[in-house]
Amino acid sequence: MSKGVTPRSEDYARWYTDVVRKAELADYGPVKGTMVIRPYGYAIWELLREAFDQRFKATGHVNAYFPLLIPRSYFSREADHVKGFAKECAVVTHSRLRAAADGGVEVDPESKLEEDLVIRPTSETVIWAMYKQWINSYRDLPILINQWANIVRWEMRTRLFLRTSEFLWQEGHTAHATATEAREEALRMLDVYKEVAETEMALPVIASPKTEAEKFAGAVETWSIEAMMGDGRALQAGTSHFLGQNFARAFDVTFRTEANEEEFVWATSWGVSTRLVGAVVMAHGDDKGLRLPPRIAPVQVVIVPIYKDESKTTVLESAGKLSADIEQVGVRVKLDDRETVTPGYKFNDWELKGVPLRVEIGPRDVAAGQAVVVRRDVDQKQTLPLETLPAAVPNLLEEIQASLYRQAEEFRTLNTRQLDDWKEFKDFMVKGGFAVCGWDGDPATETAIKEETKATIRSILHEEDPSGLTCVYTGKPARFKVVLARAY
Amino acid sequence: MSKGVTPRSEDYARWYTDVVRKAELADYGPVKGTMVIRPYGYAIWELLREAFDQRFKATGHVNAYFPLLIPRSYFSREADHVKGFAKECAVVTHSRLRAAADGGVEVDPESKLEEDLVIRPTSETVIWAMYKQWINSYRDLPILINQWANIVRWEMRTRLFLRTSEFLWQEGHTAHATATEAREEALRMLDVYKEVAETEMALPVIASPKTEAEKFAGAVETWSIEAMMGDGRALQAGTSHFLGQNFARAFDVTFRTEANEEEFVWATSWGVSTRLVGAVVMAHGDDKGLRLPPRIAPVQVVIVPIYKDESKTTVLESAGKLSADIEQVGVRVKLDDRETVTPGYKFNDWELKGVPLRVEIGPRDVAAGQAVVVRRDVDQKQTLPLETLPAAVPNLLEEIQASLYRQAEEFRTLNTRQLDDWKEFKDFMVKGGFAVCGWDGDPATETAIKEETKATIRSILHEEDPSGLTCVYTGKPARFKVVLARAY
Repeated sequence: MSKGVTPRSEDYARWYTDVVRKAELADYGPVKGTMVIRPYGYAIWELLREAFDQRFKATGHVNAYFPLLIPRSYFSREADHVKGFAKECAVVTHSRLRAAADGGVEVDPESKLEEDLVIRPTSETVIWAMYKQWINSYRDLPILINQWANIVRWEMRTRLFLRTSEFLWQEGHTAHATATEAREEALRMLDVYKEVAETEMALPVIASPKTEAEKFAGAVETWSIEAMMGDGRALQAGTSHFLGQNFARAFDVTFRTEANEEEFVWATSWGVSTRLVGAVVMAHGDDKGLRLPPRIAPVQVVIVPIYKDESKTTVLESAGKLSADIEQVGVRVKLDDRETVTPGYKFNDWELKGVPLRVEIGPRDVAAGQAVVVRRDVDQKQTLPLETLPAAVPNLLEEIQASLYRQAEEFRTLNTRQLDDWKEFKDFMVKGGFAVCGWDGDPATETAIKEETKATIRSILHEEDPSGLTCVYTGKPARFKVVLARAY
Repeated sequence: MSKGVTPRSEDYARWYTDVVRKAELADYGPVKGTMVIRPYGYAIWELLREAFDQRFKATGHVNAYFPLLIPRSYFSREADHVKGFAKECAVVTHSRLRAAADGGVEVDPESKLEEDLVIRPTSETVIWAMYKQWINSYRDLPILINQWANIVRWEMRTRLFLRTSEFLWQEGHTAHATATEAREEALRMLDVYKEVAETEMALPVIASPKTEAEKFAGAVETWSIEAMMGDGRALQAGTSHFLGQNFARAFDVTFRTEANEEEFVWATSWGVSTRLVGAVVMAHGDDKGLRLPPRIAPVQVVIVPIYKDESKTTVLESAGKLSADIEQVGVRVKLDDRETVTPGYKFNDWELKGVPLRVEIGPRDVAAGQAVVVRRDVDQKQTLPLETLPAAVPNLLEEIQASLYRQAEEFRTLNTRQLDDWKEFKDFMVKGGFAVCGWDGDPATETAIKEETKATIRSILHEEDPSGLTCVYTGKPARFKVVLARAY
């Protein structure tokens, strides 16, 4: 409860906001619905971005950049896309300000645009308008482009990182000569997402198809990775879509096949966003604040020197040398030599900020040639010789990474139930967790469940499951085995 | 003139657009004034961004992200800022689309915003609104934040990379306790810009102060780096500003000093943008297309195998091994094994794309254990043994990097004149180049020169120059020694 973080048990939503703001990950922007990503939060995003970007490039993708502003008419082209999406958008109608009588500025009415422009809520439409120009023949395929960009979807109820009008993301948009190849691409990127979530974020996820109701507007099939947060709710951490030929038809993008026939191009899109930072907070955080997986921790080790006036020089010298030695083994280390705050304050501060390892070093430690190492993932201190400490750090960080994954996985197991009784299901959803259930496959059932419990089908585990499951809501034979949960 | 690039001597502007489009650096977006940065152009930008970002971090800066949308009222706060800026802006007035009678979408009039929002033309205002919340005491200073972001400033006359409504940039915004420290920061970042331009982009630049008329709106002092393009015109490649206390006053950002007094915070801002990609094209390109400095070349070496059916396997095997060996020495290499185009087509294509080194390998080369290496910066071929070729590549690339710098510097020297005669000056400005002149320091003189010749004062080389210069326009004693040129 350092710096007054609300305990999770008292108010989970407030705990979350407290951690995000007090650990200086993000702040509210001046416009309702907007967010400022502060340096510490942005550094986590940079590490995540790099982890994804490396893997995108290793799987043959290249980055590009498409315009922020999209003509309104583009949103009319793909009917399903229009229906399901793109309603809560920022619309640009004018292109000039002018001096106002009161000494300020006002919109110049003469600068009204001929066609309104929409700030991209996603870039499918503008990208497929360009693909039409770039694609002629099978020789131009596949196109494997990714974009890192900002996105605007109007939101009134803000939650930092999870729900903001503007967020940062990546959106892959690929074009293929065959349905098979496109579908494989969508599944390949789903795998990349799962691997980064598990390896880098220490986040166990379910990577599975979505139902028709939960699909992306305009997609033929949508898959997602779903993670469990610390309150048992689900968070969709990434999605990958097989778009069929829908966008190619809408934007008239055809290619000549090797057999010299004209065919519409096959497509995928896939994305993850800054909401992943929120997922890290909620999957691993505790009442002291953040607990960052070492691989995405901007500071992996913090050294806190403890001294009085007479021991200051000796301690700082040892701490400085230790810091240099730890940096030498390729670890992101910070020596906290602030003089304006106490060591106790520093302990709380770095606990709040989730630094995986803290090293404490005082005059008696220096004399004994040792330091105290404190893990953030478990309450565990150990004393290590200064000589061998730096070499031990990478292993310790790997252990912490693994331990955070294990804790998240155990938590998920503990909060997952196989349920076929509706009453039990309803009670379970109040408490929070993942319910593995049968579903009769009827969209009406899905809607009814959502209306009565706010739970949605997060993932389809099996279709035509042979184990004799019954639908948790209707009691009919199940067509699907699914995971149901309330979600962020 | 591969792929029909217009020769520079015929039409420099068309040559530029041809190179940018045919080398697939960028394309026009669907909305007038917008640009699509294609993967090859974006890869250059990524290398540039990384070069800057490393240096920003090495000088103690951190990255963050501020909202795209800024309340219109913010632009009324800093009077000079309003006056000089922020007029040609994209203004968001509505937040929702709705289904239209024609089956498309239209703006929902009920979603009109209470206050218009402006897409950032630069972020000073929103950042200083946040700094007000974050800064209380001298302990909170300095704040050394940088942002990588997109920016919109409405433009009707588009030139890819050089003048587009939306572009990518970085903007540093720092806050300091003293004027001295802030001014030093602005000069430090100017140095970083100069160093990156010269070291990475092989671009000699003049790093100097701007005149009052050419200053950033709201700045106390502005410095820039100015480079000479292939037609003798100047391109402002980066700017750094000492903002004094102007934005702190406008947003009421004060801090308690160590002596416990309340004082306004001192500020800087500094930025470079994707126009740097345009600068690289124009500073180094020739009639065959791009010539990329190796350090920012996405592909540093391209291998073109030359074979007939019977020699295909042998040649491709040797080429593949060579590619792996070159990659091994840390070089970005590409084996162009496309079967749909001829070697001659590939030569032209990679020349157009400015790849620094081309390696040609055919059956006789394989038999002789050698390959032909062709430099893009000079017309020079050499035959090297396959054994030693990979190890020779890094040195060759360094030579090319240095040679491109040297060529650009010689071109600048050749096209720079010290002039004090108005008639000569006017003739010289028609031809194009940098004129080193005296200026009497009168803004009216500066305006008159601009009106008569389109030349502007790019850089102030010396103030109170003692060498007895006279003003090139008025003939009065010069107060400043300046560089004048027509500029992009």
